[in-house]
Amino acid sequence: MPLLRQDLATRRWCIISTERARRPDDFSSHRGAPASLPPYSPTCPFCPGNEHMAPEPVYVVPDRGSGDGRTCEGRSVGGKTGDGKRWAVRVVPNKFPALVAPAPGAEPRKRRQVGLYLEMDGCGQHEVVIESPDHSKTIATMSDEETTRVVLTYRERFLALDKSDWNELIIIFRNQGEVAGTSLAHPHSQIVGTPIVPSDIRCRLEEAQRHFDDRGTCVYCDMLDAEIAEGSRLVAANAGFVAFCPFASAVPYATWIVPRRHASSFGVLTDEEAGLLAQILRDNLRRLYLLLSNPDYNYVIRSSPHHAAGEPHFHWYLEILPRLTTQAGFEIGSGMSVNIVAPEAAAAQLRDAS
Amino acid sequence: MPLLRQDLATRRWCIISTERARRPDDFSSHRGAPASLPPYSPTCPFCPGNEHMAPEPVYVVPDRGSGDGRTCEGRSVGGKTGDGKRWAVRVVPNKFPALVAPAPGAEPRKRRQVGLYLEMDGCGQHEVVIESPDHSKTIATMSDEETTRVVLTYRERFLALDKSDWNELIIIFRNQGEVAGTSLAHPHSQIVGTPIVPSDIRCRLEEAQRHFDDRGTCVYCDMLDAEIAEGSRLVAANAGFVAFCPFASAVPYATWIVPRRHASSFGVLTDEEAGLLAQILRDNLRRLYLLLSNPDYNYVIRSSPHHAAGEPHFHWYLEILPRLTTQAGFEIGSGMSVNIVAPEAAAAQLRDAS
Repeated sequence: MPLLRQDLATRRWCIISTERARRPDDFSSHRGAPASLPPYSPTCPFCPGNEHMAPEPVYVVPDRGSGDGRTCEGRSVGGKTGDGKRWAVRVVPNKFPALVAPAPGAEPRKRRQVGLYLEMDGCGQHEVVIESPDHSKTIATMSDEETTRVVLTYRERFLALDKSDWNELIIIFRNQGEVAGTSLAHPHSQIVGTPIVPSDIRCRLEEAQRHFDDRGTCVYCDMLDAEIAEGSRLVAANAGFVAFCPFASAVPYATWIVPRRHASSFGVLTDEEAGLLAQILRDNLRRLYLLLSNPDYNYVIRSSPHHAAGEPHFHWYLEILPRLTTQAGFEIGSGMSVNIVAPEAAAAQLRDAS
Repeated sequence: MPLLRQDLATRRWCIISTERARRPDDFSSHRGAPASLPPYSPTCPFCPGNEHMAPEPVYVVPDRGSGDGRTCEGRSVGGKTGDGKRWAVRVVPNKFPALVAPAPGAEPRKRRQVGLYLEMDGCGQHEVVIESPDHSKTIATMSDEETTRVVLTYRERFLALDKSDWNELIIIFRNQGEVAGTSLAHPHSQIVGTPIVPSDIRCRLEEAQRHFDDRGTCVYCDMLDAEIAEGSRLVAANAGFVAFCPFASAVPYATWIVPRRHASSFGVLTDEEAGLLAQILRDNLRRLYLLLSNPDYNYVIRSSPHHAAGEPHFHWYLEILPRLTTQAGFEIGSGMSVNIVAPEAAAAQLRDAS
């Protein structure tokens, strides 16, 4: 008998139906071979030497050889390419942005009535974080130090975008592989600021608010405690973060990385927490890489909207979603997912993969 | 400048960003060649002669040669294969059902508390509509008569599933092509009954209710009137239905087919309306087939949940979603879509394609 399970954070039910269950080896159609890209590609706009093929950077972390991995001495370069020195991480505006900064004097919040409907200018911000000069790297194959530089860059750009009053919500995400929506193989993430709080996010906030009203606690803190106590869905943990496959996982091997410290906004991440997040993120992606042969995946940092940054009921976290199965007509029609791998089985396999 | 547009039915904003706009010919990675399948495949469980490879049918429409296409003399066969005569449409239980009928005496609505979370049995129903004995057909290449038989079968199975009190919502959908989530090429659709009203559907109902409270009108009727009056997003129309690309289309070439007659539930479709729906559905899928070279797509019939079947504020319709682009980290993180083809451009191209 399949099971329906409710995601306590969203009140969404999903179906855990393991009739069609497969072993990790069977998810072959969506898995790549373990990456064997060259370290440099002459046509890649993100490779060193090809900087002219990408927009001018807004932020650069210089390569200082082997640092301690706990600092990120990047700097905003205000449209200049920098000083020609070698770089470790670069942030450039997206060449094809989904949203763009408003013109001076524009009103980025203004809605227009178009007949029956509402429309507004697509104001916001859209940046690309080039995570490494090495074309062949991916987070799973980076060092903790390299990953820490990426995480610290996320925080710096999050704080920079958060200063623009048209960015209501800032989303940091990574698309790994073609199935996950990327066409550029060079390791990179993206950051988008949106001029509205999307209704999906509004729903999450409302459900968390309702839980807080009922119980006086953060629903994410409660889930974290429950997962630690229960144990069967835990994947990994360190002093700052816990990684687990959620009770109502929508897709096989979905994993949440939740900070132990309650905070609504990703922007309050400390340097120490950045190192711990990098460690557990790299560890989890490496487990996926080994278990599922370098699967395509998306990850996204779910942080509070700007105006909910201090709320006691919301809690930021990072969600990893491998792209092993396809959302089809049933998922589109119902908004429910059918997950063919139970999260307890997924977590056990991920714990063993290292 | 990209635009943000609000879907009036869901209050979801989506991004229309045509910076990366492509011509229909450029959507090559997700398009198939115009179909050239054999009419029979020896390994296909849905081909005539291979009936033993699929579960026993629950409903069969016999092949009566060239009927008038406006009737559907199918019959429920209660577990028997039928009488060996040739069939035009067959409905079989899904071999790997996402949800299954409850055991006698079970309580399909019962929730269990599992630690912090809620869980319930995955009760429901999951059937496959084999649309034609001909392996090589697809709706776009069927006759209006063949398509009418499929639509009438949808209605009969909708009404059958609607009688089981554990089916709160019935979703009829079609997955065309691998990118859209199917692995079987033989033309087929699916019908699923779910034991809950999913939260996405609840949100749609609430938004429609709010619109009705504010204005005293059905939001879908209002959109239909607005689209007919405005005209730029219309694709096709007949006496019963209007097809248009919605103002806030989430994906390129998304099309809604909306009945002119207000009705919350698909189950009230008349025989005459079935013929008209078949005609406009086939016509629209044929336009997509010609314009985009047999693209992968999903379509879904969005009908009211069982208990909202008489509501004045909800309105059933059929939504076609070509799978030309990929939902990636931004869409996952925000719940917003980025559509790179404006619906006005999509509608103009679809109007010209026939």
